Amino acid sequence: MLDIGVIGLGRIGKVHINSISTRIPEAKVVMAADPNLNDEMVEFAGQFGIKNLTKDYKEVLNNSEVDAVLICSSTDTHAVISAEAIRKGKHVFCEKPVDHSLEKIKLVQDALEENPVKFQVGFNRRYDHNFAAIRKAVIDGKLGDVHITKVTSRDPNPPSAEYAAVSGGMLLDMTIHDFDMVRFLTGKEPVSIYVEPAVLVDPAIGEAGDIDTAIITMKMSDGSIAMIDNSRKAVYGYDQRAEVFGSGGMAASKNDSESTVVISNDNGVTGEKPLYFFLERYMDSFASEVKEFVDAVVNDKEIKTGIEDGLRAVVIALAGNLSIKEKRTVEISEIYK
Amino acid sequence: MLDIGVIGLGRIGKVHINSISTRIPEAKVVMAADPNLNDEMVEFAGQFGIKNLTKDYKEVLNNSEVDAVLICSSTDTHAVISAEAIRKGKHVFCEKPVDHSLEKIKLVQDALEENPVKFQVGFNRRYDHNFAAIRKAVIDGKLGDVHITKVTSRDPNPPSAEYAAVSGGMLLDMTIHDFDMVRFLTGKEPVSIYVEPAVLVDPAIGEAGDIDTAIITMKMSDGSIAMIDNSRKAVYGYDQRAEVFGSGGMAASKNDSESTVVISNDNGVTGEKPLYFFLERYMDSFASEVKEFVDAVVNDKEIKTGIEDGLRAVVIALAGNLSIKEKRTVEISEIYK
Amino acid sequence: MLDIGVIGLGRIGKVHINSISTRIPEAKVVMAADPNLNDEMVEFAGQFGIKNLTKDYKEVLNNSEVDAVLICSSTDTHAVISAEAIRKGKHVFCEKPVDHSLEKIKLVQDALEENPVKFQVGFNRRYDHNFAAIRKAVIDGKLGDVHITKVTSRDPNPPSAEYAAVSGGMLLDMTIHDFDMVRFLTGKEPVSIYVEPAVLVDPAIGEAGDIDTAIITMKMSDGSIAMIDNSRKAVYGYDQRAEVFGSGGMAASKNDSESTVVISNDNGVTGEKPLYFFLERYMDSFASEVKEFVDAVVNDKEIKTGIEDGLRAVVIALAGNLSIKEKRTVEISEIYK
Amino acid sequence: MLDIGVIGLGRIGKVHINSISTRIPEAKVVMAADPNLNDEMVEFAGQFGIKNLTKDYKEVLNNSEVDAVLICSSTDTHAVISAEAIRKGKHVFCEKPVDHSLEKIKLVQDALEENPVKFQVGFNRRYDHNFAAIRKAVIDGKLGDVHITKVTSRDPNPPSAEYAAVSGGMLLDMTIHDFDMVRFLTGKEPVSIYVEPAVLVDPAIGEAGDIDTAIITMKMSDGSIAMIDNSRKAVYGYDQRAEVFGSGGMAASKNDSESTVVISNDNGVTGEKPLYFFLERYMDSFASEVKEFVDAVVNDKEIKTGIEDGLRAVVIALAGNLSIKEKRTVEISEIYK
Repeated sequence: MLDIGVIGLGRIGKVHINSISTRIPEAKVVMAADPNLNDEMVEFAGQFGIKNLTKDYKEVLNNSEVDAVLICSSTDTHAVISAEAIRKGKHVFCEKPVDHSLEKIKLVQDALEENPVKFQVGFNRRYDHNFAAIRKAVIDGKLGDVHITKVTSRDPNPPSAEYAAVSGGMLLDMTIHDFDMVRFLTGKEPVSIYVEPAVLVDPAIGEAGDIDTAIITMKMSDGSIAMIDNSRKAVYGYDQRAEVFGSGGMAASKNDSESTVVISNDNGVTGEKPLYFFLERYMDSFASEVKEFVDAVVNDKEIKTGIEDGLRAVVIALAGNLSIKEKRTVEISEIYK
Repeated sequence: MLDIGVIGLGRIGKVHINSISTRIPEAKVVMAADPNLNDEMVEFAGQFGIKNLTKDYKEVLNNSEVDAVLICSSTDTHAVISAEAIRKGKHVFCEKPVDHSLEKIKLVQDALEENPVKFQVGFNRRYDHNFAAIRKAVIDGKLGDVHITKVTSRDPNPPSAEYAAVSGGMLLDMTIHDFDMVRFLTGKEPVSIYVEPAVLVDPAIGEAGDIDTAIITMKMSDGSIAMIDNSRKAVYGYDQRAEVFGSGGMAASKNDSESTVVISNDNGVTGEKPLYFFLERYMDSFASEVKEFVDAVVNDKEIKTGIEDGLRAVVIALAGNLSIKEKRTVEISEIYK
Repeated sequence: MLDIGVIGLGRIGKVHINSISTRIPEAKVVMAADPNLNDEMVEFAGQFGIKNLTKDYKEVLNNSEVDAVLICSSTDTHAVISAEAIRKGKHVFCEKPVDHSLEKIKLVQDALEENPVKFQVGFNRRYDHNFAAIRKAVIDGKLGDVHITKVTSRDPNPPSAEYAAVSGGMLLDMTIHDFDMVRFLTGKEPVSIYVEPAVLVDPAIGEAGDIDTAIITMKMSDGSIAMIDNSRKAVYGYDQRAEVFGSGGMAASKNDSESTVVISNDNGVTGEKPLYFFLERYMDSFASEVKEFVDAVVNDKEIKTGIEDGLRAVVIALAGNLSIKEKRTVEISEIYK
Repeated sequence: MLDIGVIGLGRIGKVHINSISTRIPEAKVVMAADPNLNDEMVEFAGQFGIKNLTKDYKEVLNNSEVDAVLICSSTDTHAVISAEAIRKGKHVFCEKPVDHSLEKIKLVQDALEENPVKFQVGFNRRYDHNFAAIRKAVIDGKLGDVHITKVTSRDPNPPSAEYAAVSGGMLLDMTIHDFDMVRFLTGKEPVSIYVEPAVLVDPAIGEAGDIDTAIITMKMSDGSIAMIDNSRKAVYGYDQRAEVFGSGGMAASKNDSESTVVISNDNGVTGEKPLYFFLERYMDSFASEVKEFVDAVVNDKEIKTGIEDGLRAVVIALAGNLSIKEKRTVEISEIYK
């Protein structure tokens, strides 16, 4: 039985507590911390029998009963707490992104070199049934050599302009998942990136210095081409699709919906909209990623989504930001070699 | 060049004239007859260069220039004119049904025995791309032994109660196509039939002694089971689907529509309705069946949809009518051996 | 917190224990019984903290701590144990079918009249996302008056001939779910039934006196028609679809599959097969039905799938068996009024 | 009756002769020319009653009986013959592209200014049922403001390296259609273009100085973004899809296939491949564009796809070529203002 401490009791922290408590019999949350610990959090934790609660994450790290920590705190604290936990010998599952700054990600890398614990980054979409099936088709050689990779990622609703202003920008906040998806699906690294940005959803987001729409093109290390199209607002819900085209064929996923029912009437032949909310759409993948983390720790297996993956996605996003700023193709090596 | 005479200038006669004139270079309509010949028909024929028009179909049969005739007159005249044409040595393409009476169909069979010309019945749906593809899957053995055959056939709009009263009933008027479809898809004969009838669309149809909805079950000669569901009114258009399920798999067709475009918005994910009108839906199949007839005549090939097919579909419909009347399973052999 | 006793630790008993333990925080399994209790069952129960295990179900019924029981024992014991539990004042969730004999179902009805506890029958498919969505379309009036209801239900693999011989026949063993589905989707009762049976999958099943393929037609109380097609073996997996057609439109469901991914290559455009196994396909519905039962008990709500539903499905199956035997339409009132 | 002369009896010239002869009663091909006139062409023309054949296109232009000409000769002669025909007062339907050189396109524009006859460019895909339906959704406001436009265009087989070397490059030869499609779907002009090119299908094409794969991004005049993905070889056939995403929703088309039949078996659920050959896929659109041309001439209507459209697509392609050469975003105004 793996004893886990959870740091951060916001939305995603709760998702993981729920998953571990109800779907992962090999692990147990024994302690949780949140600087803004409140009655609602206490009650939530209580439902799952978690009594040991604190405002100070250091108490979790100092608890010798805790084997592993899930870091679900605010993004700017991910790297620092991760490094600290690693040095305390805890295995770490860290939410994405590790940090917006390569220097701070380096702190985590350094800590891991000295204390080779298990470290996983929360790129949950790799564990989604649809994307995993496309990846499997690539690995199984069903598509031959990959030529074109396309990721569509559109949110149902834009963030506030205030949030956009402090989020690091759409590429670090939202597209970070898609950058990881391109790397995951192809198994290759991008060598250059070109971003065509736009502000079409909410002018206030533009005034805050961010974008809300983009088409991103990447040249990959094997010469293939990848593209991502993003929008902060799709009226029909959360649009999450991918397509990989190669010399041997194409694999493409559709959106998931609540049911397969189609109604034919005078208006046409109408199926359900995509699942609207990311928690709904990706609930299973959140459970699967933590399950894999627990398995890696308990059975000493290799982590599949580690610090290198956390780093690479941020590097690509930073290169993308430079492309936006200078309106040109940016080599990934300009950011990180 | 095959010289054709068309008897009957109603809707279906015009369809065939159009097909022959524009899509079948090996044939030419040289003459046409209609007892109610009017200006509109003369103009229509003129567009295709058909000048030789008459009210009397016998003139067509007596025209030695005419190699083959298409009989598109009213149903009650099909058998008589067919027999007459055959005895004049004309090849005959006869619209379905040959007749509602087995005695009158016998006249055609007798004529054919004495004058073995080419004789084809207008079961156009056999030439439809979707149904032909299912039949091909059966023939190619892709479905193994057939176990269950399902045909869905629903019209966009019911006929008037007046028409229903003189049509011979829904089974002879509409389901006749579906009976042929079951025979075509499976390559087997039904041995018994059970009809569950209903009047749900228009009470006036019921008052006229007909039905407008039915589920029909047939036991086939190989022990497999077939079913047809019919409705005289589907608000979403003309619903024409089939499914064959066997020991090796299942083949199923969807409806055709005007385009493949799907619109996703706040209301759902909506594709187009099925093609609404039978001429739209089956236009290509009308051309294909006549093309095959012309080819059979010109190159002396075997007719694939002949008098036996015309007879069998009527026999099944008559057995079905008896099932409705006596509320019981009827052996096909009770009607015809 | 509802304390539950589970009677029967076979496959379905385990499914419910898992669901309650991991997805229903308001309930807890405190005791379980199985006449063949073995080490594997003890270990399984132990995983969920269930220590109180016995071979004698009566101990469960006599345990005053137990508020409700789930009866997952062999079919022939359902009715007797149900009646006993009801008389002990326990709320009962009973797996389907309640019994094959109307007399024994009557025992349960009598017990319930004297002790009006909550009693639910395990027709889990009503809680499936697809079928529930069709039912919702019917209730919301989106389909107008129902004219035709179609249920396709095909298993991935036939049972052994031995099992078939003692199962009560396909209609009581397998189609029982589909009879309930027709009642659920339409909200109406059948008034007559006609079964076209066949043995096409395994001759040994026929020799054992059972069938493995059928098309079933039912006239419903509102004059509409329903049909079910069954096969014991679909090579492509578990085929579970429904279609309701009415004066206002049609709602149809497709099969669920593991992912939405479609691969296009030289062989065609290929999506995944339906989920193969019933536990996979219906896992969520098993959890949902028990969740609803717990909710009904805890909050004293009305049971939606009760003894009347359990009875009606058996009545229809018995009428169907008579139709097979006598090769005729059977009025439901011949079996039960 | 419009009398038409056809210049060029290659593949596309024959397509148009067939369409006019069999589907457009208002027009008639009275004369045809081809510098390499041979027996096979004579026989083909003879089938449609075209007896007046010549090697010299000037004879067609000098024939006073000819009202309109279809220019289906080799690309490098399009502009010159067009200008000549215009000056002779003939209405002109010219195959795409008008020319690769803006100077030569200018010759046509100048001729048209002096002789305002009807002039249509053969961008047949605008007349395709799928793309026309997307365009209609845009015009009808069903998608709100357009944000993202995506065109997928992949050929079933690459051209020879020899052809690639003289074709003007993939952008002028193949993508030219897609550039027009983006303009057609959005009703907007691109203001800048970025091409990410690759040689992944056939190295010989790369050695010949051309590319065979590309992702192209365009910023449009309304601030929206468009992208095209191209490949010279899709093993599953001719992949021709489009998607327009806007503030009000998304419209997306699928590929057309030979039938709607889907086969479910042990390998999965498999539908047919896209129609393989461009003549098959776009046959109806070829007929529709010429029909519209004939209608515009006969009834003096405005041409919808004129010289400006011919010019603009070439301008974009030239800008794209510059982007490939200089690896940068190119403003369309750098090529043409």
